[in-house]
Amino acid sequence: MQSRDHAWVKDIKEDDQVRGLYLVKVKRTGSTKKGDPFLSMTLADRTGEIEARVWERVGELSPLFKEGDVIDVEGYAGSYREQTQLTLTALKVAEDISDPTLFMEATPKDVTRMVASLRDILKGIKNASMKALVEKFLSDHNFMVLFRKAPAAKNFHHSYIGGLLEHTLSVCQMASLVADHYPELDRDLLITGAFLHDLGKIKELKFERQIDYSDEGRLLGHLTLGVAMVDEKLVGLKDFPGEIAVRLKHLILSHHGEYEFGSPKRPKFLEAFALHLIDDLDAKMNGLSRFMEKDRQEGTWTDFSRLFERYFLKGKLQAFEEKEESVPSGQERQKVLFNP
Amino acid sequence: MQSRDHAWVKDIKEDDQVRGLYLVKVKRTGSTKKGDPFLSMTLADRTGEIEARVWERVGELSPLFKEGDVIDVEGYAGSYREQTQLTLTALKVAEDISDPTLFMEATPKDVTRMVASLRDILKGIKNASMKALVEKFLSDHNFMVLFRKAPAAKNFHHSYIGGLLEHTLSVCQMASLVADHYPELDRDLLITGAFLHDLGKIKELKFERQIDYSDEGRLLGHLTLGVAMVDEKLVGLKDFPGEIAVRLKHLILSHHGEYEFGSPKRPKFLEAFALHLIDDLDAKMNGLSRFMEKDRQEGTWTDFSRLFERYFLKGKLQAFEEKEESVPSGQERQKVLFNP
Amino acid sequence: MQSRDHAWVKDIKEDDQVRGLYLVKVKRTGSTKKGDPFLSMTLADRTGEIEARVWERVGELSPLFKEGDVIDVEGYAGSYREQTQLTLTALKVAEDISDPTLFMEATPKDVTRMVASLRDILKGIKNASMKALVEKFLSDHNFMVLFRKAPAAKNFHHSYIGGLLEHTLSVCQMASLVADHYPELDRDLLITGAFLHDLGKIKELKFERQIDYSDEGRLLGHLTLGVAMVDEKLVGLKDFPGEIAVRLKHLILSHHGEYEFGSPKRPKFLEAFALHLIDDLDAKMNGLSRFMEKDRQEGTWTDFSRLFERYFLKGKLQAFEEKEESVPSGQERQKVLFNP
Amino acid sequence: MQSRDHAWVKDIKEDDQVRGLYLVKVKRTGSTKKGDPFLSMTLADRTGEIEARVWERVGELSPLFKEGDVIDVEGYAGSYREQTQLTLTALKVAEDISDPTLFMEATPKDVTRMVASLRDILKGIKNASMKALVEKFLSDHNFMVLFRKAPAAKNFHHSYIGGLLEHTLSVCQMASLVADHYPELDRDLLITGAFLHDLGKIKELKFERQIDYSDEGRLLGHLTLGVAMVDEKLVGLKDFPGEIAVRLKHLILSHHGEYEFGSPKRPKFLEAFALHLIDDLDAKMNGLSRFMEKDRQEGTWTDFSRLFERYFLKGKLQAFEEKEESVPSGQERQKVLFNP
Amino acid sequence: MQSRDHAWVKDIKEDDQVRGLYLVKVKRTGSTKKGDPFLSMTLADRTGEIEARVWERVGELSPLFKEGDVIDVEGYAGSYREQTQLTLTALKVAEDISDPTLFMEATPKDVTRMVASLRDILKGIKNASMKALVEKFLSDHNFMVLFRKAPAAKNFHHSYIGGLLEHTLSVCQMASLVADHYPELDRDLLITGAFLHDLGKIKELKFERQIDYSDEGRLLGHLTLGVAMVDEKLVGLKDFPGEIAVRLKHLILSHHGEYEFGSPKRPKFLEAFALHLIDDLDAKMNGLSRFMEKDRQEGTWTDFSRLFERYFLKGKLQAFEEKEESVPSGQERQKVLFNP
Amino acid sequence: MQSRDHAWVKDIKEDDQVRGLYLVKVKRTGSTKKGDPFLSMTLADRTGEIEARVWERVGELSPLFKEGDVIDVEGYAGSYREQTQLTLTALKVAEDISDPTLFMEATPKDVTRMVASLRDILKGIKNASMKALVEKFLSDHNFMVLFRKAPAAKNFHHSYIGGLLEHTLSVCQMASLVADHYPELDRDLLITGAFLHDLGKIKELKFERQIDYSDEGRLLGHLTLGVAMVDEKLVGLKDFPGEIAVRLKHLILSHHGEYEFGSPKRPKFLEAFALHLIDDLDAKMNGLSRFMEKDRQEGTWTDFSRLFERYFLKGKLQAFEEKEESVPSGQERQKVLFNP
Repeated sequence: MQSRDHAWVKDIKEDDQVRGLYLVKVKRTGSTKKGDPFLSMTLADRTGEIEARVWERVGELSPLFKEGDVIDVEGYAGSYREQTQLTLTALKVAEDISDPTLFMEATPKDVTRMVASLRDILKGIKNASMKALVEKFLSDHNFMVLFRKAPAAKNFHHSYIGGLLEHTLSVCQMASLVADHYPELDRDLLITGAFLHDLGKIKELKFERQIDYSDEGRLLGHLTLGVAMVDEKLVGLKDFPGEIAVRLKHLILSHHGEYEFGSPKRPKFLEAFALHLIDDLDAKMNGLSRFMEKDRQEGTWTDFSRLFERYFLKGKLQAFEEKEESVPSGQERQKVLFNP
Repeated sequence: MQSRDHAWVKDIKEDDQVRGLYLVKVKRTGSTKKGDPFLSMTLADRTGEIEARVWERVGELSPLFKEGDVIDVEGYAGSYREQTQLTLTALKVAEDISDPTLFMEATPKDVTRMVASLRDILKGIKNASMKALVEKFLSDHNFMVLFRKAPAAKNFHHSYIGGLLEHTLSVCQMASLVADHYPELDRDLLITGAFLHDLGKIKELKFERQIDYSDEGRLLGHLTLGVAMVDEKLVGLKDFPGEIAVRLKHLILSHHGEYEFGSPKRPKFLEAFALHLIDDLDAKMNGLSRFMEKDRQEGTWTDFSRLFERYFLKGKLQAFEEKEESVPSGQERQKVLFNP
Repeated sequence: MQSRDHAWVKDIKEDDQVRGLYLVKVKRTGSTKKGDPFLSMTLADRTGEIEARVWERVGELSPLFKEGDVIDVEGYAGSYREQTQLTLTALKVAEDISDPTLFMEATPKDVTRMVASLRDILKGIKNASMKALVEKFLSDHNFMVLFRKAPAAKNFHHSYIGGLLEHTLSVCQMASLVADHYPELDRDLLITGAFLHDLGKIKELKFERQIDYSDEGRLLGHLTLGVAMVDEKLVGLKDFPGEIAVRLKHLILSHHGEYEFGSPKRPKFLEAFALHLIDDLDAKMNGLSRFMEKDRQEGTWTDFSRLFERYFLKGKLQAFEEKEESVPSGQERQKVLFNP
Repeated sequence: MQSRDHAWVKDIKEDDQVRGLYLVKVKRTGSTKKGDPFLSMTLADRTGEIEARVWERVGELSPLFKEGDVIDVEGYAGSYREQTQLTLTALKVAEDISDPTLFMEATPKDVTRMVASLRDILKGIKNASMKALVEKFLSDHNFMVLFRKAPAAKNFHHSYIGGLLEHTLSVCQMASLVADHYPELDRDLLITGAFLHDLGKIKELKFERQIDYSDEGRLLGHLTLGVAMVDEKLVGLKDFPGEIAVRLKHLILSHHGEYEFGSPKRPKFLEAFALHLIDDLDAKMNGLSRFMEKDRQEGTWTDFSRLFERYFLKGKLQAFEEKEESVPSGQERQKVLFNP
Repeated sequence: MQSRDHAWVKDIKEDDQVRGLYLVKVKRTGSTKKGDPFLSMTLADRTGEIEARVWERVGELSPLFKEGDVIDVEGYAGSYREQTQLTLTALKVAEDISDPTLFMEATPKDVTRMVASLRDILKGIKNASMKALVEKFLSDHNFMVLFRKAPAAKNFHHSYIGGLLEHTLSVCQMASLVADHYPELDRDLLITGAFLHDLGKIKELKFERQIDYSDEGRLLGHLTLGVAMVDEKLVGLKDFPGEIAVRLKHLILSHHGEYEFGSPKRPKFLEAFALHLIDDLDAKMNGLSRFMEKDRQEGTWTDFSRLFERYFLKGKLQAFEEKEESVPSGQERQKVLFNP
Repeated sequence: MQSRDHAWVKDIKEDDQVRGLYLVKVKRTGSTKKGDPFLSMTLADRTGEIEARVWERVGELSPLFKEGDVIDVEGYAGSYREQTQLTLTALKVAEDISDPTLFMEATPKDVTRMVASLRDILKGIKNASMKALVEKFLSDHNFMVLFRKAPAAKNFHHSYIGGLLEHTLSVCQMASLVADHYPELDRDLLITGAFLHDLGKIKELKFERQIDYSDEGRLLGHLTLGVAMVDEKLVGLKDFPGEIAVRLKHLILSHHGEYEFGSPKRPKFLEAFALHLIDDLDAKMNGLSRFMEKDRQEGTWTDFSRLFERYFLKGKLQAFEEKEESVPSGQERQKVLFNP
């Protein structure tokens, strides 16, 4: 089935006939008052979640799939307690899911173009050892397949397919600008560190059908996993200077800046401070923009953000020439603008 | 007296005849075992501090000056308990101190060129209101005199004459780059905020002969003082949009990022996060570079930094091609490089 | 309509005919299973909130008002899912809301008498400059209109119409007692600071129909706004001593006591410590008393307070002579009293 | 020996003949280059410390006393390395130290009058049980002897003989004023708690010749010791209501307000919050006043206080009428006043 | 009624006829649409909670019992809104509740055997004073009745009948092993401290029908209550060495290790550190094991634990020989094992 | 030279003729008043530090050695400013330092016996994979040479030659006891984790002549270095179960327990909590015992410990039967015992 035939969850309305591929997020067996078994499921695609029920052939269908599987279904939409609910009439397990973006959001940017831009920046690395290390990654086909696809997080910033690439490119670009602005920085070290800093997320996260932490992600974390990935590549690079290796690994380990954010080491040289702040800036610009975009609160303030423990002011500043005609004094204007 | 005639403290050696203008940092009266009074002083110029004694005419000279004054002296250098000490033979209070850099370090950059660069960036502001506000400052002669001279801090970053201008320019330049990179940012707002964010330091600090906090600096702080300076300029700008005024003041108040760093408000919109991180980056690049330069610890690590509660790794990474000839394997190289 | 004709939300019971003025807190459009539009609203007065529905003439009525407006309605009370719900039969937008206490709680004390008491205390200020500054506020008609009406907070303490006046008076009274008890305190400074400390709340909060933060309240806060209000008055007071001005502004800025409570400066002289502790005491006495009064938990302990992260012991201690007759030993009494 | 015959340490000058009683704070045996033993001591009275040496009969004198003892000496003052030093010519152990204020500072207030004032306030307690408990303490002779003498702390506030009484009285007086101002408070409970809150300091501190912590003070603390002292008195009060006992003990345990200040329980009813804040206010008014008085820093700011991590502004505000004649505008005045 | 006749809440299904003794956790009176009163209750036994309704004779039955009582009921199970609900047909207040484990979980271990094991360990105490103190507790019948029954906590670890005994025994056993391993520890002191450390929980908690805090528990806490219990026993032990008494009380007061966990004193000698860590280990082993056992989350991770702010990895490690046959390389195995 | 010929620093007295091997900790060149160069050095062995001077042949000797080298010297002890000081008459660089304990303290335990005990415990591991991994380390000769010699820390606990082995053995022994006591623990996992947890310290620390951090130690830390050491061994262990590998690495990464102690992951399964607490217990028992032993403070309390921010109670509890004869009541005894 093609995704164009798929009924997006957000578009399903009462009385619709529905076909599509959905991820089974929750699956429970219940029994009706008459004592017959039924399946109660929460299905999802990248646009949302919907409740679904199977009333027939439960004993036969239930063993075929489990939570986390994708099923190919037909059914119709009804309403139960003011919420839309699907009643499924046909169901089979989806064999091959060619398109992960059916279930996960994806970067709005062009992946191929981003990879090309990243290669361009990395070409500028002059130090032969760092260049060789970076090349080891870029020429590792298995790595690159995952690197193009991986998200940069489960939640908050760049938490979508392609997000890791988008974030890595943006951090490398900012690193390049910052290295130009502060000549005391070692440009090669900063850019190589920028490229490496989050690579461990390829292993920290699972992103086949939904973004979640892997077991080693939860137990070891992307900082330690990233250092191990560098160590693996270094095995093939004889004569790699130990001093450079240790500085690069420190850049990975310290890029969260403080112990309480999971860095086992805090920045101890200039490039480590710069990388930490650039990473923080890029994560916040992306994460906060998306938080504000997605916010559904009326007015100029977002809903309360638990992560940041505050409300955010939404909305662009508008040139006052455009939106007003004549306003007497500053003090009064202010009141008018804010409390209409 | 010209500063070229001045004997720099760091250059004074035993048996030198000495002339110069020095700041009186400590002044005490003692009495010799014979019961005669003498003056015991700590004198300073920007290169360091030195002990000095006056044994003659103490009753006549002592009332002429107090701590914080600059005195014009002659004397010779002796040694007391392994430290060089001046015995003064002539002393008068310095009337006019034309050159503050005799006592305080100054920016290594060209002030006039920095002002020109800053004006250039600020010219790029398109919003008429913000442009007018910025212009109010730039055309205020008294303000500009102080702005060219003020340091950005008592300690740590840009803590020298001209430091505030240097820091403000650098933050504006980075703000411009960051606004280019993240189109979701309002460029005018970010750059105007970058210009305004630390202006209150003109009042928070005293910098006539030594850099120290003023009373209103300690009691109110440069965030509150900066907001008041903006309010003062806004009085002359009829019809200034309240929405813009409030956002600009928030940029000033929130630029330390967290309550514990003295911000009464934490960042609540994108530009406030960006300004906080750019300011932090610029302060650290300058402050840490200087800390490392000034460090006198042998080896690759600085002395312990109380401010950052850590040691810093000094020294540029050197291309290994240059400094080594043949090194067997990565593991061993590392040991060689680090523990010579 | 007079408030005496208004049906208080807390009094509405099933089958009542209802008339009243209510604030529209939430307003949504839904559609019935037949596809007809209906309005689903949450209405409120100061005694509570109630759900309401409009089933007729929705297209005509809906555009007339929005969330935050007050509507004048008629209808009857039914029940839906065990909750009382209004069905509205008539609805118009209320033109003039003369009585804000219809929607917001108000101080139980007499406003006119409180103003008189406050003026009395402030008359006691001997320092001519501080007296003049206070007088500037007291004689500012627009200020006094807001000052009589403003609450002292959105939640917790004195969070009702007139609360700011009540809190300010109480803090001034305590300041007077404390100044008598500790002669090392400057009485004028402490009382003037007590009067000024929270005035910025007039701008930090909106309190026309509901108490909420204003935009400048969220972005700047009442400490900064209060300092600006003082600065505005100082413009008209030539020769006001700078030393006094700075101390008064410090009292405002430091009255939360610690950075983490939003004070950009911590107390740096005796009166600042005293004001902070008196303010804290007054806020807690009022806020905790009300929390306990409103608590609906059975037994002697309140529900868990998230703000204080604890349970509170309710109820007055009773003189045991009155409530008991004969109790054997201390140990056993205790058990009897606590675990009946 | 009478204290009027005692040479106060702060008054000793080179070449003085000296007699007095001094506390031996440090005592060490050294040997001269010739190999003869000598005693090197630090002696103290309440005005300061001074170095002393014994060169003769060391073998005979040394065993007679140890650190912490008081010795009755004669000698003369010389100078060693720019510091005054005593050479002792006669030395015996002081048998009876009738006057502890020779070695420790004492309250400037009249102890008898303070006890009378405290009894007056406590007479106002109406609840018979609380009255009886308080009376148990007041009529305990051994307790009262210690209570009149005990300091309220080793350092900071009321850290002198009679300090506990002075602090307890002041907190009771403030408690009475606060109970009048907030009718929701139980007056008897608050005043009884105010009387009891620090009584454990009688056992937490040693104050025979110097103020220091006792072993049980360091291991158990005055909160736990105070509760145990109440428990001891309750044994003799049959039928004491358990509810009152528990509330009073809670007042003792929670009066530091927060866990991090050593309170095992945080305040859980109104009187506990009030007592905590009154205690804090009284401690700060006394401790900060004394810190400022004792400060020897030139100018308007004290030396850095490690306890409070800040500088304090010293000095009373002066009525500007008195100290100035004509000053043009506010802005300029300020500079004049602050940076003379 | 015997507990074998009791219908366990977790076993009740629709259409069951039900008899049993249940604790009334919530009791409210409602009125039907016709205006008739009904009782709405939440009933509980140790296996769970269930909703119940009484529709008949409400006026007569309601006054007979209140929340916290146990009622002996008959009724039948129906369904309301997809949840099972009882309709009661007979109801009386239970006179005598012989078996508290009807309502509270109990230790899986044999109480008599645990007491014997504990006595065995305590017999090993050699110091006569400590031995005598311990014996005072063991021979106090009223104490032992409560000690056998008390839980060690309301939530988390050993939060069931007999839990305090189980925890105390386990901590004493570990203390014995630790004292053997570290000869620098005073074995008697550590074991006596281990026995005493949590005894105050007998008073801190109520555990007649449900486990909850007592009033003195909330206001004083088990550390202070435990010290008072020791003090009570010491009254009967003339000549008990003060040094030992103070160390034992310190062990009780400091066993939470840090102020923020409610210890008014932090450990100050070796045994206090050891006891704190052993107690922490025992609490975590029990509490986390039970949290993992009770967790109903699918997969290898538990639900998020708010107490620990993390997810836990459930499940034993399985010897790979048993569960796999042939796996190529380490890297790939890992993926197979974690992301099936 | 044999260490028996070495003059220990702590034994050197004025007028001694001295021979020995000393570590050069500080080396500076000065010039006498006559302008001749001299060498001023701080020399050290494991018993202390001493000042030394070279007045002759400075130009010839100075280039031969630098700070950190060991020199073989002859000289005599004089006195300068009340401190003993060496004047060196012969000096050569020590070629071969066979005995590192000349400069660093060493474990008081028998290294060979400790290795044997450790092998015994590790033999008990049943899981074939873990057994194989452990064996890889035990049979690695280079590793074992370092493992026998390494300290466990630069300061505080086991900070001496052989300390890592001593600590590792002790933690393994305790792990074995704890695994016996808590059957819910996986014994093999806990013991293998105990063995591995600190191995990274071999690389984190340098311990040739003095204990200090290595560069990679400061930049990466022993947690990350330990994980890398495990990864290196795993390369040679085909078919090592990924699940076990990840759990073992988590044990290493989480053994500091909290982020703020440098653990990038906090414990997430039972064995990780147990290992953290056992490690903490062992470190404290060793570190605190040594701190108390080395303390030179008179009386029962140590000097203030900055690390723990407290004083410690020194000294064993003494059975009162032995030290006292007759003491009246508990209250008075206490005073006698504590304040003699």
